[in-house]
Amino acid sequence: MQPWKTLSRRVILQCGRFLTVESHTVALPDGRIIEEWPWIITPDYINVVAVTVEGCFLCFRQTKYSVEGTSLAVVGGYLEPGEEALAAAQRELREETGYTSPQWSSLGKYSVDGNRGAGNAHYFLAQRAVRVAEIHADDLEEQQLLLLSREEVEAALDGGEFKSLSWAAAVSLALRQL
Amino acid sequence: MQPWKTLSRRVILQCGRFLTVESHTVALPDGRIIEEWPWIITPDYINVVAVTVEGCFLCFRQTKYSVEGTSLAVVGGYLEPGEEALAAAQRELREETGYTSPQWSSLGKYSVDGNRGAGNAHYFLAQRAVRVAEIHADDLEEQQLLLLSREEVEAALDGGEFKSLSWAAAVSLALRQL
Repeated sequence: MQPWKTLSRRVILQCGRFLTVESHTVALPDGRIIEEWPWIITPDYINVVAVTVEGCFLCFRQTKYSVEGTSLAVVGGYLEPGEEALAAAQRELREETGYTSPQWSSLGKYSVDGNRGAGNAHYFLAQRAVRVAEIHADDLEEQQLLLLSREEVEAALDGGEFKSLSWAAAVSLALRQL
Repeated sequence: MQPWKTLSRRVILQCGRFLTVESHTVALPDGRIIEEWPWIITPDYINVVAVTVEGCFLCFRQTKYSVEGTSLAVVGGYLEPGEEALAAAQRELREETGYTSPQWSSLGKYSVDGNRGAGNAHYFLAQRAVRVAEIHADDLEEQQLLLLSREEVEAALDGGEFKSLSWAAAVSLALRQL
């Protein structure tokens, strides 16, 4: 089973650091050539499922541009240029919640769009989190920090209250490890 | 908690039916205006976690352009124009595996990119699946159908062998219901 080969690539749209679109010419293993395969370049991002030392899940009630109404959410954000995923996760947890954690584990790295790229999602579980600082989030969205029990998180997940794919995926994967 | 408001939108890139990019002017609840917010339009897609009447999970070993090497995968595909998500799921299961199922349940609908859209992922669980036809997939990728036990699927999920976000999310959400 052979991979597709990128024969050439050119930028067809550049929108600052958050979105570049390329057009690729791709060779399939059977010899077919695809002339115009759109490829999306966005920064990798992290999500963190954080559980406090008391066993509460750090979640948000917030808005998000693509989501109708409000949604439950977990800590998340883009990697800064050159930043490692774990460092981004630790930074975002502290900025968005004021908590830090001594116990981090990876929940995996996943390609966001198997066909067109769109970066990678890196998920982390942070346990025994404690509050050490005020919240210093620079996000554009309004968000309200909630401390939820495991039962509340499971009911919300199964009820579709985590409305963005990455939040639902991170929570679902984290619950497997807890 | 108020949503962002779209004040205007214009198409800045059009690549056939699989990718359109718009630039939005957006008003935040606090009065700030964002002049150039990229917004990605792609078709909604489905993934199906299908379990046979014998209790085997229908998975694939396959390549995918954004993924290094091969990956485990589940049934998936874009909705055709005007097609309902469940109909697309039932069509893709039959095309990609030759199986049908009498027992369908939704695992939710999720916005793929909370910031920039990129359509919705619709996940389904199909149980008591039986083989009724030959495989008639029109996908560009090579893929090999595998019948895996629950234990094999769980080990693969936790080992990061479902390398695309949607496959890992669908499998993880399905396992909660089984």
